[in-house]
Amino acid sequence: MPIDAVLTDIDKNADAAEARLIDFLRIPSISTDPAYAEECQRAADWLVAQLKGLGFEAQSRPTTGHPIVVGHANPKRKDAPHLLFYGHYDVQPADPLELWKTGPFEPHIQQGKDAQEIVARGASDDKGQLLTFVEACRAFVSNGGLPCELTFLFEGEEETGSPSLPGFLTKYREELSAPALALVCDTSMWNQKTPAITVMLRGLVIEEVVLTGPSRDLHSGMFGGPIINPIHVLSKIIGDLHGPDGKVALPGFYDGVSELPKDVAAQWRALDFDEQAFLNDVGLTSVGGEAGRSVIEQIWARPTCDVNGVYGGYGGKGSKTVLPSKAGAKISFRLVGAQNPRKIVESLHAFVEERLPADVKAEYLPHAASGALSLPFGSEPLKRAARALGEEWDKPAALVGCGGSIPIVGAFKKDLGMDALMIGFALDDDRIHSPNEKYSLTSFHKGTRSWARVLAALAA
Amino acid sequence: MPIDAVLTDIDKNADAAEARLIDFLRIPSISTDPAYAEECQRAADWLVAQLKGLGFEAQSRPTTGHPIVVGHANPKRKDAPHLLFYGHYDVQPADPLELWKTGPFEPHIQQGKDAQEIVARGASDDKGQLLTFVEACRAFVSNGGLPCELTFLFEGEEETGSPSLPGFLTKYREELSAPALALVCDTSMWNQKTPAITVMLRGLVIEEVVLTGPSRDLHSGMFGGPIINPIHVLSKIIGDLHGPDGKVALPGFYDGVSELPKDVAAQWRALDFDEQAFLNDVGLTSVGGEAGRSVIEQIWARPTCDVNGVYGGYGGKGSKTVLPSKAGAKISFRLVGAQNPRKIVESLHAFVEERLPADVKAEYLPHAASGALSLPFGSEPLKRAARALGEEWDKPAALVGCGGSIPIVGAFKKDLGMDALMIGFALDDDRIHSPNEKYSLTSFHKGTRSWARVLAALAA
Repeated sequence: MPIDAVLTDIDKNADAAEARLIDFLRIPSISTDPAYAEECQRAADWLVAQLKGLGFEAQSRPTTGHPIVVGHANPKRKDAPHLLFYGHYDVQPADPLELWKTGPFEPHIQQGKDAQEIVARGASDDKGQLLTFVEACRAFVSNGGLPCELTFLFEGEEETGSPSLPGFLTKYREELSAPALALVCDTSMWNQKTPAITVMLRGLVIEEVVLTGPSRDLHSGMFGGPIINPIHVLSKIIGDLHGPDGKVALPGFYDGVSELPKDVAAQWRALDFDEQAFLNDVGLTSVGGEAGRSVIEQIWARPTCDVNGVYGGYGGKGSKTVLPSKAGAKISFRLVGAQNPRKIVESLHAFVEERLPADVKAEYLPHAASGALSLPFGSEPLKRAARALGEEWDKPAALVGCGGSIPIVGAFKKDLGMDALMIGFALDDDRIHSPNEKYSLTSFHKGTRSWARVLAALAA
Repeated sequence: MPIDAVLTDIDKNADAAEARLIDFLRIPSISTDPAYAEECQRAADWLVAQLKGLGFEAQSRPTTGHPIVVGHANPKRKDAPHLLFYGHYDVQPADPLELWKTGPFEPHIQQGKDAQEIVARGASDDKGQLLTFVEACRAFVSNGGLPCELTFLFEGEEETGSPSLPGFLTKYREELSAPALALVCDTSMWNQKTPAITVMLRGLVIEEVVLTGPSRDLHSGMFGGPIINPIHVLSKIIGDLHGPDGKVALPGFYDGVSELPKDVAAQWRALDFDEQAFLNDVGLTSVGGEAGRSVIEQIWARPTCDVNGVYGGYGGKGSKTVLPSKAGAKISFRLVGAQNPRKIVESLHAFVEERLPADVKAEYLPHAASGALSLPFGSEPLKRAARALGEEWDKPAALVGCGGSIPIVGAFKKDLGMDALMIGFALDDDRIHSPNEKYSLTSFHKGTRSWARVLAALAA
């Protein structure tokens, strides 16, 4: 592989790449605001032009929302793996505008703490990250061609929950499920010197439990005593959800949860993660949750239960002597490993029903039910990508987890049967979704070089 | 005492009394709506005219809200007890207007289920009830004079929480604390054939407990697990407030709570109270609360704890993956007997503090703290009044409790050091605060006769 020539080319053309990023960032492709629908179309068209400029096939395809760009490159070559690259061209709104030091869609380059950085809405999330991949492709095209077949998928509704994407994946399933692996560039480095591959995403179950006691709100003086109060019943149920060791008390909850492989556990312990700083930053001093588990292990690799909201009776200022008819809680579970969302929902329902006294009824509103996703630690693409990143950054890539969910990765798995390799070069201080969003030019430049190395490694 | 002549006079002048009530009910003295301020003044003036017409001294005195009418009768006689009569001339708004069959301030008489009734806003609450007392006085005046010294206190802000009354009682304390006992006509009969005296009012403590865990709301995916969730902590605390026997678990909570005297317990058991109908009416089938206690005993004579509101995290439609910084509950206690509100507040705080894990802080917002009020079962005025009511209705008066608080009665006790005898002739189906409010003409007529008998009995 002429990888050295490709890397040299990336270095030589860094200024031109930055100029293209600036061009892209000038388009205010805010997906949530209908006033910017034309700008979203412009951003899609801009990407189509980039892909076509590289000699690839590309179209902007309409959806009921913003268009999705699909591109194909090197379709003749059948001896190398076929990969799908995903990114999104839409951005969050820029407000509060008054907190921006310069216009959010007037990108400019400034000297940051450790590196030069480009400031604009979308610089990091996700236009800068998306272009690292496109620029890597450009260098290959100038140096003998791509090492493998590629499909590009750029959506314009990631910031609004990707409403059109599942239907799109279904509609074009045959075309889009051909690749063997998805590459996603929407995640972070471990720190500014350590690249990372996100290999675990927790799943998510959310059930709202609504209890009804008396058929209407009552005066707590005139009725209080013999009348069951659903807030009391709900509180006991929530109180029972965790044992004294911090474990989730639902029967069968830990079915499908494995302990971390020893080498991964050791790698995580070796990461320079400052638990006290993490806790102090949110006003806390001690590690809660499961006794004896570290912060990182709990967030990346352990399942949890958190009540995200509770309500019942009067919650405004002052007081009201009401004995409420209803009380409810939005109960969420983060899943790992092979935990089965359906079984957890069933276990929760049984747990609630067992605790209902006479005359109290429960209703359930399902809000989410998806399992955890992970790329097996020993898989071949993961090993190759990790090695490639290590060569670029002179440091082994951290294999990290993510406590949250990335819906698109779940959709690839569910709708296309495809795993995803999540590599990104964002930094924790990129201020994504906030004023003065930035992307380090080191991330942009070395990110581009990283993708060149990863593509070469995956194709080898 | 010329009580027979007084009662005959009341019977003879029943039509004229009804005409005066209709006159009074035509005044839309809605206290909460500033547009009706002049009408409130008119109602106060109307009452002053009535008292003066009876030869009493009377003025409408200004407050920062609506005026309060103070009257004095028979001030020269010092050998009979001095009593204070309280009523209110203000009424609730009439909306929803479209549900009234006739205008709310166009009183009319119709045949009801069991008796003729007068339909208008305020007919029962409290203009009709108030006038039963004034008409009884009128009959005495026509028949040799009142049997005792009387002070009248008519306020115009009862329906808005009596904001001006405490200051008024303080300002005129010397004048208003002279009577030995207050008479309040704002309560109900046990049923349409059984008179009642309300002898117990529960006290009320309300404390809002606000817990803070992390210093800001966090993403429950990115942080869930090692971060303490204040909803969980609050739920455990609420869950601990009641024991498995339904008793309140705060240490010392039952200090000052006595069992009912045997004769009162027997009288309550003998009341034809249909527990199942009471429960069914609010969609329930079984008696909750303290094991082995009847509905009536629990509502009238047992202390309780009810959470009137709970909040934390996201309570809107759908879901939000938030791990909240704060969670709160409005916790109320109904008190009986000699329970000490201050000690209960202290016990609650200690109960909460004991259950706070590291890093969770509690704040407390006090919303109410008043003890229970009761007229001792064996007291002389109570015995006399009960006997007098029994003679009028041919049935012993039920000595009942009231689960709620009547703030004015607390104010009489606290500000004037005065007990109150609560006698009223309202019926449960009077639709107070609702469209088509009515007052039975039997209540009005026999209520007037009842007050004549009670006044005579208290003065004897």
